[in-house]
Amino acid sequence: MPAGQANRKSAMSEPALASFLYATVLSHPSLGRSLAFHLANKLCSSTLLSTLLYDLFLQSFSSSPTLISAVVADLLAARHRDPACANLSHCLLNYKGFLAIQAHRVSHLLWGQNRRPLALALQSRIADVFAVDIHPAARVGKGVLLDHATGVVVGETAVIGNNVSILHHVTLGGTGKAVGDRHPKIGDGVLIGAGATILGNIRIGEGAKIGAGSVVLIDVPPRTTAVGSPARLIGGKDKHFTHDDLPSESMDHTSFIQEWSDYII
Amino acid sequence: MPAGQANRKSAMSEPALASFLYATVLSHPSLGRSLAFHLANKLCSSTLLSTLLYDLFLQSFSSSPTLISAVVADLLAARHRDPACANLSHCLLNYKGFLAIQAHRVSHLLWGQNRRPLALALQSRIADVFAVDIHPAARVGKGVLLDHATGVVVGETAVIGNNVSILHHVTLGGTGKAVGDRHPKIGDGVLIGAGATILGNIRIGEGAKIGAGSVVLIDVPPRTTAVGSPARLIGGKDKHFTHDDLPSESMDHTSFIQEWSDYII
Amino acid sequence: MPAGQANRKSAMSEPALASFLYATVLSHPSLGRSLAFHLANKLCSSTLLSTLLYDLFLQSFSSSPTLISAVVADLLAARHRDPACANLSHCLLNYKGFLAIQAHRVSHLLWGQNRRPLALALQSRIADVFAVDIHPAARVGKGVLLDHATGVVVGETAVIGNNVSILHHVTLGGTGKAVGDRHPKIGDGVLIGAGATILGNIRIGEGAKIGAGSVVLIDVPPRTTAVGSPARLIGGKDKHFTHDDLPSESMDHTSFIQEWSDYII
Amino acid sequence: MPAGQANRKSAMSEPALASFLYATVLSHPSLGRSLAFHLANKLCSSTLLSTLLYDLFLQSFSSSPTLISAVVADLLAARHRDPACANLSHCLLNYKGFLAIQAHRVSHLLWGQNRRPLALALQSRIADVFAVDIHPAARVGKGVLLDHATGVVVGETAVIGNNVSILHHVTLGGTGKAVGDRHPKIGDGVLIGAGATILGNIRIGEGAKIGAGSVVLIDVPPRTTAVGSPARLIGGKDKHFTHDDLPSESMDHTSFIQEWSDYII
Amino acid sequence: MPAGQANRKSAMSEPALASFLYATVLSHPSLGRSLAFHLANKLCSSTLLSTLLYDLFLQSFSSSPTLISAVVADLLAARHRDPACANLSHCLLNYKGFLAIQAHRVSHLLWGQNRRPLALALQSRIADVFAVDIHPAARVGKGVLLDHATGVVVGETAVIGNNVSILHHVTLGGTGKAVGDRHPKIGDGVLIGAGATILGNIRIGEGAKIGAGSVVLIDVPPRTTAVGSPARLIGGKDKHFTHDDLPSESMDHTSFIQEWSDYII
Amino acid sequence: MPAGQANRKSAMSEPALASFLYATVLSHPSLGRSLAFHLANKLCSSTLLSTLLYDLFLQSFSSSPTLISAVVADLLAARHRDPACANLSHCLLNYKGFLAIQAHRVSHLLWGQNRRPLALALQSRIADVFAVDIHPAARVGKGVLLDHATGVVVGETAVIGNNVSILHHVTLGGTGKAVGDRHPKIGDGVLIGAGATILGNIRIGEGAKIGAGSVVLIDVPPRTTAVGSPARLIGGKDKHFTHDDLPSESMDHTSFIQEWSDYII
Repeated sequence: MPAGQANRKSAMSEPALASFLYATVLSHPSLGRSLAFHLANKLCSSTLLSTLLYDLFLQSFSSSPTLISAVVADLLAARHRDPACANLSHCLLNYKGFLAIQAHRVSHLLWGQNRRPLALALQSRIADVFAVDIHPAARVGKGVLLDHATGVVVGETAVIGNNVSILHHVTLGGTGKAVGDRHPKIGDGVLIGAGATILGNIRIGEGAKIGAGSVVLIDVPPRTTAVGSPARLIGGKDKHFTHDDLPSESMDHTSFIQEWSDYII
Repeated sequence: MPAGQANRKSAMSEPALASFLYATVLSHPSLGRSLAFHLANKLCSSTLLSTLLYDLFLQSFSSSPTLISAVVADLLAARHRDPACANLSHCLLNYKGFLAIQAHRVSHLLWGQNRRPLALALQSRIADVFAVDIHPAARVGKGVLLDHATGVVVGETAVIGNNVSILHHVTLGGTGKAVGDRHPKIGDGVLIGAGATILGNIRIGEGAKIGAGSVVLIDVPPRTTAVGSPARLIGGKDKHFTHDDLPSESMDHTSFIQEWSDYII
Repeated sequence: MPAGQANRKSAMSEPALASFLYATVLSHPSLGRSLAFHLANKLCSSTLLSTLLYDLFLQSFSSSPTLISAVVADLLAARHRDPACANLSHCLLNYKGFLAIQAHRVSHLLWGQNRRPLALALQSRIADVFAVDIHPAARVGKGVLLDHATGVVVGETAVIGNNVSILHHVTLGGTGKAVGDRHPKIGDGVLIGAGATILGNIRIGEGAKIGAGSVVLIDVPPRTTAVGSPARLIGGKDKHFTHDDLPSESMDHTSFIQEWSDYII
Repeated sequence: MPAGQANRKSAMSEPALASFLYATVLSHPSLGRSLAFHLANKLCSSTLLSTLLYDLFLQSFSSSPTLISAVVADLLAARHRDPACANLSHCLLNYKGFLAIQAHRVSHLLWGQNRRPLALALQSRIADVFAVDIHPAARVGKGVLLDHATGVVVGETAVIGNNVSILHHVTLGGTGKAVGDRHPKIGDGVLIGAGATILGNIRIGEGAKIGAGSVVLIDVPPRTTAVGSPARLIGGKDKHFTHDDLPSESMDHTSFIQEWSDYII
Repeated sequence: MPAGQANRKSAMSEPALASFLYATVLSHPSLGRSLAFHLANKLCSSTLLSTLLYDLFLQSFSSSPTLISAVVADLLAARHRDPACANLSHCLLNYKGFLAIQAHRVSHLLWGQNRRPLALALQSRIADVFAVDIHPAARVGKGVLLDHATGVVVGETAVIGNNVSILHHVTLGGTGKAVGDRHPKIGDGVLIGAGATILGNIRIGEGAKIGAGSVVLIDVPPRTTAVGSPARLIGGKDKHFTHDDLPSESMDHTSFIQEWSDYII
Repeated sequence: MPAGQANRKSAMSEPALASFLYATVLSHPSLGRSLAFHLANKLCSSTLLSTLLYDLFLQSFSSSPTLISAVVADLLAARHRDPACANLSHCLLNYKGFLAIQAHRVSHLLWGQNRRPLALALQSRIADVFAVDIHPAARVGKGVLLDHATGVVVGETAVIGNNVSILHHVTLGGTGKAVGDRHPKIGDGVLIGAGATILGNIRIGEGAKIGAGSVVLIDVPPRTTAVGSPARLIGGKDKHFTHDDLPSESMDHTSFIQEWSDYII
């Protein structure tokens, strides 16, 4: 596999890194084992041994083919959507967003098996190590990209669809009033710009785009763009524009500028 | 005590976690020792040994009953205000906001004892491990909740009152012009939404509410709501609304929406 | 040197810290060795040994006088611009922004030597440990201050000039449409407030000031102030004000308030 | 299983140990996994990660039923022959002789698979951690007890039969003259007292007993006792006594005293 | 205190060591805390946290004045009897024999409190780290010197009197025949030379001396010297010599040579 | 260089070991750096950082060409005299005797520079990690082999000549009577068998051979063989045999047997 060859070549040309590449990637026969190994070493602490976590991740990845197919989809999403992603192993080794989601997938599995204290302990380690805080109960689709990832917060009843792209500092938060279902539902193919805050049990429609720094408290229709704090639809509430492309794939953050009348530096 | 029983039950049903629960909670006769142990293991580094930090935390917690009563108040605040907090030990073990505040309380104690280099070293570890950066000199009241906590920054002369709730990515920052007293003063019962930036020696009145993503540079009157970038009062500057509930306890981030005329997705 | 004396005095009066101060500062004959030692211990992991990183940093600092002069300029920038910075060694030991930039300078050097996998691995560790994510290819000038630093993201083709001051949660990001040169260019002496998001291959002119929480998608002229989401120039697009001072040095975040007509709490 | 219950009871009554017992014994479904976990944590180093060793031990124990049956036989040997062994898990957790042999069994397996550099690296770790130095090529039978174990040295072509008991500081060494087969062959049921040195390709017959501190350079017949430096047979070379019991099981070191004419303090 | 001053001077003149000296000695207000700190850091493992052991040692040393007075007596014994011991802190920091005995004193205390699994786990760590294997039930007097210490083995029912000196590789072992009380009793003031093996429930009389490499299976009268394998009394069984000095204090291993008729190189 | 190729081949064929080989051997441009790296990682502790030790070893090896030539001579000695040594890197990586001597050479250098507390701290780590206890003041020649090494003790005023071979459990000890020069002087080319105890300021003549388990208290003439406890010369005191070969190179432990009249099993 080309990624393997790239790693082997990296290991050759960069002795300082070889140890890391070999231990983490080249010595494992499958993606699941390699990822389990890497996550265990990243997330372990003095009270959660790496060997214990390795066991846990190995069992999770080997028991759930769905989980592995989601891992693969996320890996490909990073490769296709992030121009800075040179190759798959670069993402596997170094992307904290990718790693945080995969660890979340395991904590979500544990949550579903009613192993809640362990799921919460894992969430806590992910929050410490990657500064990404996803509640174990949150549901995350396939092909999801957390780009840069630092500061992402996803609440207990949030749902993230397939092929969503989320930049750093994004919040899918609750509102204090509600108990029960109280976090956003993000449709397939949505793009959420850096620093956007989306609060409450609202729906971001399929293929919608949320501008960087926006604060969103109300539903956003499919394939529209919401920007600002508070967020407004490009084109206005009643005659908003819709776009055809999938923004999560184009990662187009700024094409709405020319259409945004009062954006005038 | 019920939390103890819950832990014991968790330890029984989840062997993978038992080691952690026992070492951190069940084997300690008091909350202070348990917290000292946990913080020492979380905040230690190759140059700040866990045993050294454990000593420091033990001495701080045992020498200051005020400190322990603040710890208890913060623990109860998390339990009461955060619907995702299942039980007290979940918070004690896993909430980085709770842990960051308690470690800050110790660095603040050291600062007051003129042990400033140590106080600053501790601040630095808190910032690395929890991504929460609170200057040791900042004064923090009781019953304070840092929810999610990643990215919170609190400056040297900031004051946070009692029963305040602060979401992640919140800044209580200075302004470059001023020396001396240059950071915000947050009144009792204030709620500050995710990503809000509050700058300068200004006063956020008791029971006020700051909307997510707001930028606040001027005093906010008690029991009013400020939102937006730059922030404006709901109801307008001169005839702003006031609310009766304590927003830090209701954690109500969004009830101002219907009153906010131009929030129109 | 005074910093050495201050450390020695700290070590004397604070035994709990002495170990750390001695190992990190006092036992090293030069700033380069001290910094290499400190960064190696901070950034090491179970798969990237501290001894390996120490080697790498030592070689980088000793092979590049330019690099060391940039380190010194950054150290002085922190000392001069941050009222909370008590002395140089406080910054050297504890400022995650300072440490993240210096580690980036090494990853940038590696990138230029075509040792890209290692440069990327280093970026990943910086992002995990300091929550600061700077692409190895990004070019960073001298005398740069990352204040608080948590959450800063700087993209691959971004350029940061000399004597720039950047607060925490600032993004110099790309836009999904573009490949190639797609990130902001920050002129000398610029000040970027907390939480500002600057996207695309745009130019922030020399001595400009970006308000906290602003979202900037279009060029900002030299010595002007842009605020808001979307950002607008103080004074308006056509008759914007210009200031004479260097905002990165005055760190003046808020003097534009009185001139900003609609800032009306 | 009784050992499990004993552990559970220990964990209950001794919180300080519970963490260790849970992580190492109670959380694993099989003896092989538990032992793999324990050895990995004991033998890991900064350059041989615990996760890597865990993998290796798991694979070895799961691929070889013979290996596990030898583990069980050794465990029972310790339980039956050592009056200080309170229960099986005490031996499993704490007996360095037991642990060193099991780790050797894995290095021997690797040697047989022609993975010699790894086998030798493992030998080196066993020698550092347990001060027990067994060449990977040495063949070791079942039901072997290394009591106390510190300082045991076993050479490349040595063979140890079944049900052998060996005290600490025992050497089964080579002689410089020979290459090839140059180390002792120890028959079934032999007992070798503390500090005995046995050198060269000689045969210690089945059921023989070697007194503490003896130096043995010549074959010892079955069921005889050799003592002294240089060792002589009890009863003399030509009319030596033979015993009926298996000395490795009785662990009788000293019953030969009355027969040893010149032992006269 | 002079040792403190010596340490402080060492710390000054040897920056590379200062960190270690400060953390371990200078920062602690009492010998008990300093020793607890040092032992915790030496004996910890991935499954026995240093903070947990620190707690245990602190509690043991603070609850038992007898224990601390034994520590002091052992420290003075090392200082007075070992010409290579430059000062007290050198012994406190570096002498594995001293450290192993003090850790044993704690495991013995635990054994007496019926906390046997923990006592045994501690014995196991002492055996791994210092290669000194003392059963927790063994009783050890005050003013005991374990010189060099590697390989010392002391069985369950052994008793060591006051002011005893024991060199490395010494065994106070059992014999397989016996259950119950089956290990040696060492009188006050005894000196046991390197590599001596003493087996069975025998008595080494007060002030006796056991030559290096001896194997002793029968009682030795007070103030006599036994040498050889098997050991014989100097002067012969019936008219053995007696000496007046305390050999454990003179550490005289070899003055018997001239009297030993057949010692004839 | 062939060793490098062997390592590279090992790394290829054994992924589990590649990480270790790369980090320790392949990534370093010289033997001195590789050894410094390996020793730092082996000897570090929570209070003696690996980076600190690495610095120390690097400086020592680079400042003293004599030291490096001794390292090379020891490496070749292991290769030539130990039939189990497959190649040079096997010895460099795995032989605790080789590693202990090289670390001793550094502690001896420090001792000569009057950095005694550091030299003693290093001795202590060598004794803990390798169970080899060599006083920093002891003088050790070139081409010395410590085979197996566990339990070797060498006193303060001992001198070991060139091309000496010493097996495990060997003591070159003092006698309590003497102060000042009180340890053995070992001539060039001497072979000392396993478990031999040599005490006092005596001289073991050039090319002499000491049998395993011997206790030697009196000078041994050159090229003779002493065996037994107490040791006697083969051939008798007055007409002892002399041999022509260098026993340290032939490693011949046992050829004296046939000549030893009373060795009669």
